Amino acid sequence: MAFRSAVITLLTDFGLQDEYVGVTKGVILQIHPGATLIDLSHQIPLGDVPQASWLLAWSWPYFPKGTIHLVVVDPGVGSSRRLICLVHQGHLFLAPDNGVLSQVVSRVRAPVMYEVSNRRYALKAVSHTFHGRDILAPAAAYLSRGLPPHRLGPRVRSLKLLKSPSLHGGPGRSVRGEIIHIDRFGNAVTNLPQEQVLRIKRPSRVELRVKGRTLRGLSTSYQSAAKGSPLVVVGSHRLVEIAVNQGSAAKKLGLRVGDPVWLR
Amino acid sequence: MAFRSAVITLLTDFGLQDEYVGVTKGVILQIHPGATLIDLSHQIPLGDVPQASWLLAWSWPYFPKGTIHLVVVDPGVGSSRRLICLVHQGHLFLAPDNGVLSQVVSRVRAPVMYEVSNRRYALKAVSHTFHGRDILAPAAAYLSRGLPPHRLGPRVRSLKLLKSPSLHGGPGRSVRGEIIHIDRFGNAVTNLPQEQVLRIKRPSRVELRVKGRTLRGLSTSYQSAAKGSPLVVVGSHRLVEIAVNQGSAAKKLGLRVGDPVWLR
Amino acid sequence: MAFRSAVITLLTDFGLQDEYVGVTKGVILQIHPGATLIDLSHQIPLGDVPQASWLLAWSWPYFPKGTIHLVVVDPGVGSSRRLICLVHQGHLFLAPDNGVLSQVVSRVRAPVMYEVSNRRYALKAVSHTFHGRDILAPAAAYLSRGLPPHRLGPRVRSLKLLKSPSLHGGPGRSVRGEIIHIDRFGNAVTNLPQEQVLRIKRPSRVELRVKGRTLRGLSTSYQSAAKGSPLVVVGSHRLVEIAVNQGSAAKKLGLRVGDPVWLR
Repeated sequence: MAFRSAVITLLTDFGLQDEYVGVTKGVILQIHPGATLIDLSHQIPLGDVPQASWLLAWSWPYFPKGTIHLVVVDPGVGSSRRLICLVHQGHLFLAPDNGVLSQVVSRVRAPVMYEVSNRRYALKAVSHTFHGRDILAPAAAYLSRGLPPHRLGPRVRSLKLLKSPSLHGGPGRSVRGEIIHIDRFGNAVTNLPQEQVLRIKRPSRVELRVKGRTLRGLSTSYQSAAKGSPLVVVGSHRLVEIAVNQGSAAKKLGLRVGDPVWLR
Repeated sequence: MAFRSAVITLLTDFGLQDEYVGVTKGVILQIHPGATLIDLSHQIPLGDVPQASWLLAWSWPYFPKGTIHLVVVDPGVGSSRRLICLVHQGHLFLAPDNGVLSQVVSRVRAPVMYEVSNRRYALKAVSHTFHGRDILAPAAAYLSRGLPPHRLGPRVRSLKLLKSPSLHGGPGRSVRGEIIHIDRFGNAVTNLPQEQVLRIKRPSRVELRVKGRTLRGLSTSYQSAAKGSPLVVVGSHRLVEIAVNQGSAAKKLGLRVGDPVWLR
Repeated sequence: MAFRSAVITLLTDFGLQDEYVGVTKGVILQIHPGATLIDLSHQIPLGDVPQASWLLAWSWPYFPKGTIHLVVVDPGVGSSRRLICLVHQGHLFLAPDNGVLSQVVSRVRAPVMYEVSNRRYALKAVSHTFHGRDILAPAAAYLSRGLPPHRLGPRVRSLKLLKSPSLHGGPGRSVRGEIIHIDRFGNAVTNLPQEQVLRIKRPSRVELRVKGRTLRGLSTSYQSAAKGSPLVVVGSHRLVEIAVNQGSAAKKLGLRVGDPVWLR
């Protein structure tokens, strides 16, 4: 009974127009009717494993221990890529081994992982094109009912990791980072952790260069600049973020994922 | 145990592409794993407080007593605007004090309200940019577990109210109203309550003027006009609505929120 | 108590911007707070009954026995079209009698159906424009609490059926089918069941003609062709599908619902 309220999150690039998300949930409920199903996002750009990796890393810590995170951004479905169950800080992650777990395990030396290969915990008919429904969803449901992860398959020692955008020293005492996500509001999230700006003693001396412009000063909220003006702020991911008060920084400054930024 | 099935609704402008809705739900489930989470909409146009206010007013009466309505359309996050808990007809509302509760309390003389300021019921680390996740979500979760609202903070006596579009007498015996919402079907919802047309004894004599056109007669359903023709109907909000049978009135007639209409 | 975890799925063309989906769920929860509500899709093109019919047929078998499927793609709301409760293989379906159940009952000789007409199980005030909220949602909630379907209204003997796109023999030993769905990935799903290609002994000899092009060979997964190349595969619906490895077949080949295909 302890597992009846187990939470399962879903992160996919399925969109919401087709029935793919719905049937994935149906498969889970057939096995575990008491599961609580929470959508992280189904709007990941098609096959965009890096974006999914960031969203997952920013989401899982806000869920209760024991939560199972089901990730189906899987352009390699039907190829020889493995399916993985990762055990990490009391959470379970089910995903293809395509790098989507990179940001979750980026600082973990020896992650505990199992291959998801035991067909006893899959649907009877496994398609070549929808392993999320046929293999990962049933696995998530059995885990949420209490199945120990090692029953899913053999221990796995290595995981495919994406090359993570890293911070570099730049000219002077500057640090070079990059934009890793643009959100619905047009805020541009960088990979510069808040410590990088908080170590600068006077917030007014913070300088961020992006696309040939220099933004000066660290704001404490989106309202700190005039309406329509760009600003630098520590966003809700605890990362340095470029925003525009009541506007889209991405549109106003022409920002895109991958654009470099320099902080000084 | 009585609270284990407590319903919490969510109304935001977060969209569904980012993880913002998901983590808000995660925070609630960490505190109250048995909460039932229902999305009203996350597609409110960015920062559009008036639209959110209408949707909220049209939604809450359909939920069970005891439901907690969490509203995060909050362009002023991080500024000095307060966060409010409103107690109204057995429902609880958590929202920024920016006018978004206007349509809910429009006819209430002395609404019962508390400031949401007791950090005991917030996340430990409160960001400057995401009070929905850090303050309102935990508050909703504690309320759904039975926390009395007055524990969230001191009583509040006044609330920011939006100027509500009102009805005016026009030439002859006409009444002037306006379009307050365009829905996915392209139906244009006005602020004219159904009583305004139902008091006209012969439905065929109803006349609605909009954008220089006069629509004649009150239809009983969308099928009452020829395919592609505009019509006037009492819609599901019990408000006068302009529709096109199997088409979009907004597109066909070029209608927008704020456009005036005259009923006679 | 056995019914407290009853699953209700929702399939509509409401979109997610308005409050329509939310209030439908609110009505259900007022009557049955323990219901589990699962979205199949709310993005059905406006009034597109055939698309809804396919999605429903592809979804319901993945849900637990006893699931109630609520379908509100209802361009005829307010007209004289009936509302139907269908009992089928341990599942219950609530929908307007407009053909949306066609693909579910396509092979059923004498489906068990009731009219949904007993106003005892509807909201007190029934609008002319939103029977999903006012009639079908309460009916779903009462069914999920254990109400026998025959209490909803009299037995119904005939159902409106859509003309289903059928397979035809073509020149040589070819079979003519058509594209019935384009998914978010741009994959074009045909009405050719997998048996039509699996009976061809050498997969390399499969030939599919579409839009003046001939695609050769049956792939086992989306990766079987070069990146950007079109391919033929048995998709997750167990139907023949036209796809492009890491691209959109619909865009690349200009495919649309209704386009004919020839298999040889």
